[in-house]
Amino acid sequence: AIVAFLQQPRQAAVSAANGSALAGKKVVITAGPTREAIDPVRYLSNFSSGKMGYAVAAAAQAAGATVTLVSGPVQLTTPPGVARVDVDSAEQMLQAVTRLLDEGCDIFIGCAAVADYRMAQIADNKMKKTDADELTLTLVKNPDIIAYVGQHPKRPFTVGFAAETQDLAAYAQDKLTRKNLNMIAANDVSIDGQGFNSDNNALTVYWQNGQQSLPLATKSDIATALIALIADHHNQ
Amino acid sequence: AIVAFLQQPRQAAVSAANGSALAGKKVVITAGPTREAIDPVRYLSNFSSGKMGYAVAAAAQAAGATVTLVSGPVQLTTPPGVARVDVDSAEQMLQAVTRLLDEGCDIFIGCAAVADYRMAQIADNKMKKTDADELTLTLVKNPDIIAYVGQHPKRPFTVGFAAETQDLAAYAQDKLTRKNLNMIAANDVSIDGQGFNSDNNALTVYWQNGQQSLPLATKSDIATALIALIADHHNQ
Repeated sequence: AIVAFLQQPRQAAVSAANGSALAGKKVVITAGPTREAIDPVRYLSNFSSGKMGYAVAAAAQAAGATVTLVSGPVQLTTPPGVARVDVDSAEQMLQAVTRLLDEGCDIFIGCAAVADYRMAQIADNKMKKTDADELTLTLVKNPDIIAYVGQHPKRPFTVGFAAETQDLAAYAQDKLTRKNLNMIAANDVSIDGQGFNSDNNALTVYWQNGQQSLPLATKSDIATALIALIADHHNQ
Repeated sequence: AIVAFLQQPRQAAVSAANGSALAGKKVVITAGPTREAIDPVRYLSNFSSGKMGYAVAAAAQAAGATVTLVSGPVQLTTPPGVARVDVDSAEQMLQAVTRLLDEGCDIFIGCAAVADYRMAQIADNKMKKTDADELTLTLVKNPDIIAYVGQHPKRPFTVGFAAETQDLAAYAQDKLTRKNLNMIAANDVSIDGQGFNSDNNALTVYWQNGQQSLPLATKSDIATALIALIADHHNQ
């Protein structure tokens, strides 16, 4: 099936888009950044716009899946027919994902740029500027959501994303194995015009012993091709 | 003039709105948060939506002023007739403000929630999660933009904002004196339904030996009343 897909990417994409490739599948997709509070007014976050995750949700829905989007804070409209759960922090995202896995999930796609770290302690009141020239923030590790999904008792077909600025292929392949993923979509966010906040993207998708490049295109087209690839591997 | 204003706030507000109160004045307004990079994908920021600053810009423009808005990253439309300079970090905001003061400015209104601190060093590449359970970020003080304006050789009539979650009046009055401001608008952001990201606000405005409350109203109405108050004090 992989060979057939590689030879006929357009046909596979059309099959995904016309509503049959993921018919009857429950798909959970995370999208956007997480926001980790420092105090009541300040936070740590990242430049993820959520556009890629929302495009993947729309493409999965178009392929016939029942889609739930777990979304960090973004400025985007929910794709028609997609259920959306809004969260702020990584811990809230993990809670939402845990509940959705318990309810049953066939395919999990982690597009969110989950903050690796959060504050060790969130201040109750706005931290005042002091006379000290330096301020030190002590951060602790956030839960690793995609690794949690990859070793869950009801583990779904699990797809991760890797957004990197260097050593992309090596890091993505390492993450695929280390986090027990079925596929990983690698995204070089150091290149202008693709990745964070762009309307276009280019991905290289890796799986055990294989890979496929999805060259620069709109996030909508990339998402459709990615969903076709996921459907093809999931349905093997 | 203050007494007259306090007795006739509606008339003063109308005078501001009908385009005469700030006729011929150059007004510079900062708005929104600043965003301080941690690495190419992560940043520190705050929950300022920019709505109050944009409303103040629209009100100043309606009062006949020539308005330049120096804006951090927000999701807002520029008010018609207002010039807008986009910046990201506090250092970029200071550069833009310095240039505008040099070009001539009668009234400066600092609505932006400028980050007090930035990273001591911005990482060139995305920081990798390590095995260590903790991560320490070392921050250094950002330039204090409103204090800089307050002691500038071409010092304009200078209005600051104080967004606090506790001890609001004491902190605002201290800031008024310490930063050499003409007025300060204090905003309790711990109360739901006013302040950051709300469409409403309530302010208490302080000046040397006086104060006025602007009770809960739309940010547009609060901005109109604030501009009337500023015009009245500036034109004394």
